[in-house]
Amino acid sequence: MNFELSKSLEILARTPQVLDALLNGLSKEWIENNEGENTWSPFDIVGHLIFGEKTDWMVRIKTILSESENRLFEPFDRFAQLTENQEKTISELIHEFKELRKRNLNELNTLNITSNDLNRTGIHPEFGEVNLKQLISTWAVHDLGHLAQISRVMAKQYKNEVGPWIDYLGVLKK
Amino acid sequence: MNFELSKSLEILARTPQVLDALLNGLSKEWIENNEGENTWSPFDIVGHLIFGEKTDWMVRIKTILSESENRLFEPFDRFAQLTENQEKTISELIHEFKELRKRNLNELNTLNITSNDLNRTGIHPEFGEVNLKQLISTWAVHDLGHLAQISRVMAKQYKNEVGPWIDYLGVLKK
Repeated sequence: MNFELSKSLEILARTPQVLDALLNGLSKEWIENNEGENTWSPFDIVGHLIFGEKTDWMVRIKTILSESENRLFEPFDRFAQLTENQEKTISELIHEFKELRKRNLNELNTLNITSNDLNRTGIHPEFGEVNLKQLISTWAVHDLGHLAQISRVMAKQYKNEVGPWIDYLGVLKK
Repeated sequence: MNFELSKSLEILARTPQVLDALLNGLSKEWIENNEGENTWSPFDIVGHLIFGEKTDWMVRIKTILSESENRLFEPFDRFAQLTENQEKTISELIHEFKELRKRNLNELNTLNITSNDLNRTGIHPEFGEVNLKQLISTWAVHDLGHLAQISRVMAKQYKNEVGPWIDYLGVLKK
């Protein structure tokens, strides 16, 4: 499958509703338990997605499309959410993510990205030159990766409850 | 986290809406592509979930709760969906799954399962004795495992599009 902007947007636009359907209203243990020390709970992961909407994806897209000489990205803080959201509920976080994502996709739409724009580049602090197509692909894959992670973290809460079926449930071994 | 029937039902009741939010209306490639030969697409996975609703979970629950001497489970055909659903759309499959899951959870509710019932047993064709608590836990984990799989299969469609970010996207290496 090759990159298409419209097909990337299909994924990006759906993630807020997926999180809502998957997490809103669940008991505290499903939301707050993680996979062990230094791993993330579903609550932490939604916080991480919020932080990306605020500081990463659109900022970098606009950096790439700017006429500035300096198109170096700021490093992304992948742990900010571990201290930022402690007083909030999962329902509040999901709502916040929905609003941010909607705003970002609206803004993306106003940029009228052309197929030439997709090859424009910015400088990643670690990898060096990357282009807009790679950045938008990564945004969509990043969503899907964290949805897979949330499902896995939740599945693992029942690791000791499934008895011998553990052999058939590959998700418990990841 | 220890098993509770109500917390298991939280997961089982949500899966149809999660699939709807994640898959309904997506382009064909997101729905029909898989991870390579002899792997499943999101379309195949929803078909597998439907087959489980029809032939596996509730049938086994009722076998466990029956007064019959013979509480041996039928083997579950894990590949039936590969031939059964070829003429249907993903939207039809999701609708069918929603209806089946709703009917099954309604029926489960009428069984008035007690904490004693949770320790009642059936005979798995491969593992031998398993109890109702393990079966219901497995049903929930099975949902979550396949949600994780669907997200991963979709993420992989962009494996060649993310450029150097592939190093940060663990979901592409699974």
